[in-house]
Amino acid sequence: MSPQDIEEAIRRRKARRDHFAGVEYLRYADEFHGVPRGTVLLDGVTLWGYPSIGRILALRTGLEEQFQAPFWAEEKIDGFNARIFRHGGEILALSRGGFICPFTTDRIRDLMDVRIFDDHPDLVVCAEVAGPDTPYMIGSPPFVTEDVQLFVFDMMRLNAQGFLTHDEKTALIGEYGLPAAPAFGRFTKDQWPAIRTLLLELNGQGREGVVFKEDSPRQRRCKYVTSDSSIQDIQATAHNMLQLPPEYFTLRILRLALFMQEEGIECDGEVHQRLGQAFLDGLFEAIEQFRREHRVYTTHRCRLRRKENAERLLTQIKRASGHMQVAVRRLEWENGYYVLAFDKVYPNMTGMFGHLLKGGMVFD
Amino acid sequence: MSPQDIEEAIRRRKARRDHFAGVEYLRYADEFHGVPRGTVLLDGVTLWGYPSIGRILALRTGLEEQFQAPFWAEEKIDGFNARIFRHGGEILALSRGGFICPFTTDRIRDLMDVRIFDDHPDLVVCAEVAGPDTPYMIGSPPFVTEDVQLFVFDMMRLNAQGFLTHDEKTALIGEYGLPAAPAFGRFTKDQWPAIRTLLLELNGQGREGVVFKEDSPRQRRCKYVTSDSSIQDIQATAHNMLQLPPEYFTLRILRLALFMQEEGIECDGEVHQRLGQAFLDGLFEAIEQFRREHRVYTTHRCRLRRKENAERLLTQIKRASGHMQVAVRRLEWENGYYVLAFDKVYPNMTGMFGHLLKGGMVFD
Repeated sequence: MSPQDIEEAIRRRKARRDHFAGVEYLRYADEFHGVPRGTVLLDGVTLWGYPSIGRILALRTGLEEQFQAPFWAEEKIDGFNARIFRHGGEILALSRGGFICPFTTDRIRDLMDVRIFDDHPDLVVCAEVAGPDTPYMIGSPPFVTEDVQLFVFDMMRLNAQGFLTHDEKTALIGEYGLPAAPAFGRFTKDQWPAIRTLLLELNGQGREGVVFKEDSPRQRRCKYVTSDSSIQDIQATAHNMLQLPPEYFTLRILRLALFMQEEGIECDGEVHQRLGQAFLDGLFEAIEQFRREHRVYTTHRCRLRRKENAERLLTQIKRASGHMQVAVRRLEWENGYYVLAFDKVYPNMTGMFGHLLKGGMVFD
Repeated sequence: MSPQDIEEAIRRRKARRDHFAGVEYLRYADEFHGVPRGTVLLDGVTLWGYPSIGRILALRTGLEEQFQAPFWAEEKIDGFNARIFRHGGEILALSRGGFICPFTTDRIRDLMDVRIFDDHPDLVVCAEVAGPDTPYMIGSPPFVTEDVQLFVFDMMRLNAQGFLTHDEKTALIGEYGLPAAPAFGRFTKDQWPAIRTLLLELNGQGREGVVFKEDSPRQRRCKYVTSDSSIQDIQATAHNMLQLPPEYFTLRILRLALFMQEEGIECDGEVHQRLGQAFLDGLFEAIEQFRREHRVYTTHRCRLRRKENAERLLTQIKRASGHMQVAVRRLEWENGYYVLAFDKVYPNMTGMFGHLLKGGMVFD
């Protein structure tokens, strides 16, 4: 990135200046001239954006087509992406989009041993933060039943694109006792029957799926998710259906069908029922919510160490929500944490129900 | 419409010249300066487009909000719209979009007594054509079990926008013994409990719903459909899901939930199951079709009196299908008709499965 490139990115609003607790930084809000979205420039240091990972929807041919060398299979965890690094005396966490995340930054010492950054000051730890009490997500992996947990899945270095090798990463995870995304082993593509068995197990346990990572210099990756995760996604979001692009739903139904068909899951009444219920439970809840309170919303809850971070988090969520209304329910000190609860009010659902339930017409 | 307006519509490609069996006409492909889509100019005569009818998604408040006078409730039939009129010695039928429809034009004497046009040469009969053997639709109302039937639901006059009154229409239907969309009576909006009972009955019988027509000079209309029709629509189209806008599906699920919630239909396992199955049966069929034949398609069948009309129909379907491939399976004389069977091959589904089942990645 030359200074000219950066200036152009700023001029074209692809890169934006931001700040967090006195830290000034530049954030790539979109991909620009090969610089990935989420890339951050901060005091002369570059944190490259976490690359988007392609998805295969057919397991056997997908592995066949995508990989030229053995690959690792690691659990894909349904949370949000964080890049954690040291900046001066502070540990900071970046969101996928390149914001300094007030929540993860606040809680980082609860979630991992940060002494790794004393020995490796140029390390960037890439992790998923997941659980029932995140400020961003609805739903949680089945194995995180309270608060949040962090799962390391990659490591990068400051100023460098690309990842540490699996062995380097595993060694550091072991040495510092970091919580990590479960690794299921190293496979060759002819071992797809074993991988299918693994996926069927994960599916039965309500887990999201797998990321495959080629054990080679090109570090090729792809992901593959279970049919259960598609149903869970629909279940978690049908309530605010109009806030998401409609293909969010149709593509998940397509994934679900392809997974079941390939993995030989019988398409019986139980799956039909779960899919139908995933849509209708949420919509019925939204309709009832609107009739009762004239708005459609979700309530989120999380815990933070410092009150300023709760306030920064709210400011950031309000900014990121655009025209979505964010209403604080409570912010109280409780057992060593500030407990923050807030509602996100969905304007599309609220507006649509307002129009329709008052008897309005639509032309479609 | 002044000649200048028409010239401008032509220049801007809103109105297009077309022809059918030597008949030259101008067709409004889009709404333009207040002239509705589907309006046709033919030998100095104007056939106004059939207006689009708004939809209510809440019955009680919808009737309350939309109507100022008593209204008729008529059955909404799931077929395609035709406007039938006399042109010289011929009886022609226009599609909703303003094409002269080779199928309905060919079959019109099988479907209704056209002597009405001898006595009323300026009449335009608006009807739904429905059944298992149409060239355009997948699915049929439960009460049409073979071939097609026609159901008159409105009458207009050449060169005039607006409809004949209910009484005028009913008198003509009676006098000429025309097949008509069932009329359920004239209601005031405080009679919504009776209308709800009617809708629940229609829903139980797998019928689409109702069009309400105000019995007043302003002729205000709106439609309201059953939850069963939403499921049937999904069932009929999941197989070619990617060929339709994704909101086709999400809006039907929303309608379904609103109908059930208002009409007090219990949201139990049976509905869940039917909704899930509506999606998955079609997608499984599409996947299996692709694995077997490397294409995703539907087969259509219809009967025509004249071979030229079968050929005109194919030409028109090919034109209207854009990049969709249309492949004739058979065109054979059988029991007094040319039986035409053809496949529509869906390029989006075929292409997507081609990419995915070969192991391709998607970035979403």
